[in-house]
Order: sequence, then structure tokens, then C-alpha cells
Amino acid sequence: MQDKVIEMSDGLTVPFALAAGLSGAVSTSGIIVTAGVAEIIAESIAMGLGGYLFGTAEVNHYNSERKREYFEVDEFPEKEKQEVKDVFKDYGLSEHLREEIANELSKDKDKWVEFMIRFELDLTKPNPNRPRKSALTIASSYIIGGVISMAPYFFIEDSETGLKYSAVFTLIALFVFGIFKSKVTGIPILTGAFKVTLIGAAVAIAAYFIAKWMAE
Amino acid sequence: MQDKVIEMSDGLTVPFALAAGLSGAVSTSGIIVTAGVAEIIAESIAMGLGGYLFGTAEVNHYNSERKREYFEVDEFPEKEKQEVKDVFKDYGLSEHLREEIANELSKDKDKWVEFMIRFELDLTKPNPNRPRKSALTIASSYIIGGVISMAPYFFIEDSETGLKYSAVFTLIALFVFGIFKSKVTGIPILTGAFKVTLIGAAVAIAAYFIAKWMAE
Repeated sequence: MQDKVIEMSDGLTVPFALAAGLSGAVSTSGIIVTAGVAEIIAESIAMGLGGYLFGTAEVNHYNSERKREYFEVDEFPEKEKQEVKDVFKDYGLSEHLREEIANELSKDKDKWVEFMIRFELDLTKPNPNRPRKSALTIASSYIIGGVISMAPYFFIEDSETGLKYSAVFTLIALFVFGIFKSKVTGIPILTGAFKVTLIGAAVAIAAYFIAKWMAE
Repeated sequence: MQDKVIEMSDGLTVPFALAAGLSGAVSTSGIIVTAGVAEIIAESIAMGLGGYLFGTAEVNHYNSERKREYFEVDEFPEKEKQEVKDVFKDYGLSEHLREEIANELSKDKDKWVEFMIRFELDLTKPNPNRPRKSALTIASSYIIGGVISMAPYFFIEDSETGLKYSAVFTLIALFVFGIFKSKVTGIPILTGAFKVTLIGAAVAIAAYFIAKWMAE
């Protein structure tokens, strides 16, 4: 859910701003559509694959750390017990209680390893299906966002007119997605929605004027 | 470090592919430079601000959860003690040991709250300076990556020739950053570097042919 919402607002903001920038530099929509489509393809593949690789690396990292903990618990049980005790030292538990926790925990090897992974290494078990799902979600959300902001240029030949419609579509969509994004990330909803919308507008305005200035 | 490396390779991949796509559709570099600069501005601001907002939301979330835990520890100490005991139930500790842990922990309110935040809520204390630093890192890394891949188009008028130089620069840079990226994310180094480079190449090839086909 988080991936989806964040990528969709990125997909709205960046192609929108790119198209706005080009509208400041060229008068017809043809090249803007080409650039927009190229950008959407590039970004959705790059981000989708990036998310996939990062996700699989995380799964592999978790599995190898887990294997290492099993090895250490087998080979150096006293060292691992000491590590359990160290975790609780920070929370001010008494020496004898820490000793007892380490002893009880060491009776069940699976639970012991699970404990070390979570509390010593601070890792949570990643879902092995997540990387692929997350890649598809990121890519498709970016594409949806991009299509919304680029749609007017497909139908309107004059780039400045296309920009006006694109701005209306995009800012409404950004506001709506800003509401969801705020819910997901835990920011106050209206503040968050306005922020997301304002960022989109600011980015597009910056791109428009810089591109116009460069084209002169 | 992670932000820096990942954004730099994104900044290399996406403007490179966008420029490659446009090279398939237009013959001179002028419009490609404009589009590339607009994209780099849009993406670096959008990602930088996105990272900043996400980071500050995380800091706020942590602070409000912390406040809530202090409140609960004051108002419902028995319920919170039960929650401490529940944490250790999953790890198979005996009833009397869990009781003792909860009792010892409840003697120091600060440690108790710290414990609940980490072990019940699974939150780690975010660095309050991180959002700003992270935003600047993300934005500047994206800009550096973008400038490397766009540089040839600034100097070479013919877009197909620009593309050849851009491909050489970008693929070398992607390989070098792929090495760092692999180190940071824990993938085997050469495999990771080749993957990053191949993704960049594949994305650019896809953008090039689709844009060429659209322009016909």
C-alpha cells in the first residue's frame, strides 16, 4: 500500500513537471508525448527493478544472517548467551535475571535464534513474495500516475493548452493521492494532501521556467 | 550512504534512458538537453522533498508513540506489564520469569518506555537531523548522476552521436556505482554491478525503440 501511494504521486509529479518544462520550450505536443512516455517507461522499469533487487537482497541478507546465528548458537553458545544478557543490560535488568533469561532461552534453539535475529540484529522476517509484488506495484503505480498527467497532451496539439488541462488533472489527482499518502505515512491528512499538491506545483513551475529560459 | 548510492544510479539510469528515447525521435540535441534538465530538476526536487517529508513524518510518529507509551505506563501500568510479558511469551519463557522481568522493568519508567517502543512497537529512534540531510543527499546524488549521463548532449549537436558518448559514460558510471551499491545492500559485488549496468542498458534500449516507434 505504501509503495503504491508514494509511487503514484511521484508518477504524477515528475512526468507532469517534465511536460510542463517542455511546454515552456516547444509549442506542439508531439515531442512532449514522446518525452513523457520515454520518462514513464524509464522510471517505472528502473524503480520497479530497483525495488525488486533491493527486496531480494533483503530476503537473502535475512536468510544468511539466520544461518549464521544458528551456526553461532551451535558453536559458541556461551558467547551467544552473553549477547542475550547484553541486550537486557541496556534496560537495567539485574545480573541474576539476565542470567536466567539467557538460560531459559537457550533451551529452545529455534526461539533463541529468532530472539537474536530480532533483538540483537534488529531484523524482521521479510516476505519472500514481497520483492516481486512490490516491483509490480511500484511500476504500475508510476505508470498510472504518469498517464493521468500526460493524457491531455495526447489529445491537445497546442502544448500550452495541454499544460493547463494537465495541471488541473494532476493537481486534483495529487490532492486525492496526498490524502491516502498522509493516511499511510501518518501525517495529518489535510496538511499532507496540501503539501503533496504544493510540491507537485512547485516542481512543475521550477521546471517550466528553467526550460523556458534554456530554450531562449 | 545508502540513499546516495541508490539515487545516483537512478539519476544515471532515468535521464540516460529519457535522452536515449528522445535521440530515437529527434535528430538534434537542443530539445534533449531541455528535457533532460527538466527531468533532473523535477525528479531531484520531488524525491528530495519526498524523502524530507517521509523522514519528518517518521520523527513525529516516533515522538507521538513515545508520548503515548509514557501516558499508558502512568495510567495503565498493569496492562503495560502484561504487554511486557506477552513479548516474551512468543519466545517460550516461563510464566514466573516473565513476571519477574515485568516487575524489574517497571521500576525505571524511562527504561520501561524505551523497552516498549523497541520490543512492542518495533520502532528505532530516528535521528532528527536525518530528514534534512537525507533530502539534500538524495537530490544532489540524483543531480550528479543526471549530469554525467546528459553531459555529452551539451557538447554534441547530433543526437545519435551524443547518445553513443552518453551510453559509454553512463554504463561505466553505472558499473562503478553498482559496485558501491552492492556493497551497501549486501549483494555479491560483481553480480550486483553487472545487474545495475544491465538494468540501465535495458531501460535505455526500451525507451529508445518505443520513442522511435512513436515518432514514426
